[in-house]
Amino acid sequence: MDDPFAPPPAAGDPFAVRAVSHPYATPWLTIEHRDVVRPDGAEGVYGIVRVAQSAVAVLPVTERGDVTLVGQWRVPLGRYSWELPEGGCPGDEEPLAAAQRELAEETGLRAASWMQILSYDVSNCLTDETATAFLAWNLRQGPDAPDGTEVLARRTVPFATLLDGIDRGVVRDGLTIATVLRAHQMALAGRLPEALARAMLQGA
Amino acid sequence: MDDPFAPPPAAGDPFAVRAVSHPYATPWLTIEHRDVVRPDGAEGVYGIVRVAQSAVAVLPVTERGDVTLVGQWRVPLGRYSWELPEGGCPGDEEPLAAAQRELAEETGLRAASWMQILSYDVSNCLTDETATAFLAWNLRQGPDAPDGTEVLARRTVPFATLLDGIDRGVVRDGLTIATVLRAHQMALAGRLPEALARAMLQGA
Repeated sequence: MDDPFAPPPAAGDPFAVRAVSHPYATPWLTIEHRDVVRPDGAEGVYGIVRVAQSAVAVLPVTERGDVTLVGQWRVPLGRYSWELPEGGCPGDEEPLAAAQRELAEETGLRAASWMQILSYDVSNCLTDETATAFLAWNLRQGPDAPDGTEVLARRTVPFATLLDGIDRGVVRDGLTIATVLRAHQMALAGRLPEALARAMLQGA
Repeated sequence: MDDPFAPPPAAGDPFAVRAVSHPYATPWLTIEHRDVVRPDGAEGVYGIVRVAQSAVAVLPVTERGDVTLVGQWRVPLGRYSWELPEGGCPGDEEPLAAAQRELAEETGLRAASWMQILSYDVSNCLTDETATAFLAWNLRQGPDAPDGTEVLARRTVPFATLLDGIDRGVVRDGLTIATVLRAHQMALAGRLPEALARAMLQGA
């Protein structure tokens, strides 16, 4: 069977680019401004948010099926958020290495076992940001080392409680939700180590 | 039991704001630039991407468990993408109304039955963009009406094929993935109408 997700023949950028400029930048993002001609022939603009780092997330699960969450104030939303340990991955770092570094920095946890479970585009009409998610188990506790731009709290909850927080709409971080739903799907489908899946699914 | 997702006492923005400006805007996004003092006392900046519209997505499922996907070139990534029907919801429109409008515009489909299944924050250190996802069923076909900024293709695939596309990493749109994983979870948990769930899960 043909790949149902192959692009159509002759697929390409339907916006003709007239000019490109970079009117704004911080260490974390750069705006790429394009003057374009739209598919319908009208003049237009396209503002692309290019990010310096991709995102990584870690779902760290203990032998008892508990997950350590990180809480912090999220400035763009003006709200507090409980979410998985997450961070940025520079272009010259492997996502797995970034995930291991972020987990250690934010929680002090080290994991002997890692599995990449998801990689996706965060908001594909707005930004080139991508995200990669890992499941981590066989954990041991070490010292943490949060950086100067973060004020973090930590809480450990059963995996079932995290599922319930998503269900109730109080856990709202997209990367956390996608990672947890994917791990839940894999646990239910028998695609994770049996003891790990059993610990995650108790009470869920 | 106390709510495990309540903010800690005295949680608040740890960045003191010195000045705010808006150095860049398009009809779709505005940059809010903040000069801040970081939690560690150092001077810094925070660039927030404020969006004019939230995102909505629709998972439209036929009686046979088929899903209509939309394909388009995604400019920020420079790649083609197959994804659920999605669009923008202005602040004065209800997400359900926006979802119904986008489904009709992009696919011509109308649905008699709708359920909101997810709402989340898209990238909470970068933007205030939120997304809301709906399941739609009891479908009938009408005329479509794509707008002048879009060149869309359409394909209809079984729900199981869409799950497989996520599994293989070829369906990469975050909103599509979160919506599909959530719908799959709800179908497996017996939380959708029985005939709908049965149609979705055949072959999955």
